[in-house]
Amino acid sequence: MEYPSKLIEDAVNEVSKLPGIGKKTALRLVLHLVKENENKTYALTNALNKLRENIRFCDTCHNISDEEECSICRSQRREKSIICVVEETQDVMAIENTSQYAGVYHVLGGVISPMNGIGPSDLKIDSLVSRVAQANGAIKEIILALSPTMEGDTTAFYLNRRLKDFTLKVTSIARGVPVGGDLEYTDEITLGRSILGRTLFN
Amino acid sequence: MEYPSKLIEDAVNEVSKLPGIGKKTALRLVLHLVKENENKTYALTNALNKLRENIRFCDTCHNISDEEECSICRSQRREKSIICVVEETQDVMAIENTSQYAGVYHVLGGVISPMNGIGPSDLKIDSLVSRVAQANGAIKEIILALSPTMEGDTTAFYLNRRLKDFTLKVTSIARGVPVGGDLEYTDEITLGRSILGRTLFN
Repeated sequence: MEYPSKLIEDAVNEVSKLPGIGKKTALRLVLHLVKENENKTYALTNALNKLRENIRFCDTCHNISDEEECSICRSQRREKSIICVVEETQDVMAIENTSQYAGVYHVLGGVISPMNGIGPSDLKIDSLVSRVAQANGAIKEIILALSPTMEGDTTAFYLNRRLKDFTLKVTSIARGVPVGGDLEYTDEITLGRSILGRTLFN
Repeated sequence: MEYPSKLIEDAVNEVSKLPGIGKKTALRLVLHLVKENENKTYALTNALNKLRENIRFCDTCHNISDEEECSICRSQRREKSIICVVEETQDVMAIENTSQYAGVYHVLGGVISPMNGIGPSDLKIDSLVSRVAQANGAIKEIILALSPTMEGDTTAFYLNRRLKDFTLKVTSIARGVPVGGDLEYTDEITLGRSILGRTLFN
């Protein structure tokens, strides 16, 4: 595509580096900004710059936080003896939205993925192990809430091995047929797991 | 949605003001930037800030340009006696992509739309009329390439009235069945116009 201006071209190139945004969408967004009042662009770029300058992560659980310790780790009402291990901040937000969990979290920052060159040392795994060790038996359960993918399963196995010397339960979130899902259209692996992992009907 | 950080919330609010980007997509984009190296965020915000600071429009055709006069208006190879009137920069890019047009352009910056409070004085219409007047008869044809909507048609009628005292042709791009389109699925108005505007088969 030929751009009428180098400035437009540079902006389109940068915007189209964002995930899921191609050159056409980027051009639409950039031309939208050009058409709007310039303060809108500055408000956007300021918010992003401030985010990058001041963003910090909770020292305990590594979730995104505005302070040294995040609001969940600071809360008196959260059960500190249960840690839910997730990949990313998004997962914390998703679980918080269910209102079904009152424990605390540990954000790994990804999963072990040799294909993408991500090993255990790139994740907050040592931090989890030392967090459990420092709690001196106060932590009773680790819930693994990782993606049901090969990488997620690998990470779960690795974590389970690293945690086996502690006296605590390591659990994994239930895998099965989604609520509202149709048996007929559920893939065989999920359906198979839902039969193996069947629960008492009470 | 509850955000783990005010910074994230502010950034999501700003990004979700862009057209076609909702809160969920904005969150995904913002968390992507947080995960990447901070230089990527700064490259993005710098490109956008520079764009807003230095963007300028061609003095003649009002298209986006890096200089006082855009490359199309400056070019010796463009036919200056034909002006194609379009709404936006995107339209210039689309027509340039066809390689079927060798004249120059005039970018109105929108169409007359009383519903959105856009009247003739908000567009570069006076500028077009004085451009034609100053050319002193050198402009032979004005091609109206506006959207086939009520607003586009209104603008075309208005432009035609403003230009009627000059000795030039005012034409409109052809309306008809799109190439590769199916007669059966073409709406009646388009099909009707394609019959009224039929051309000699040579």
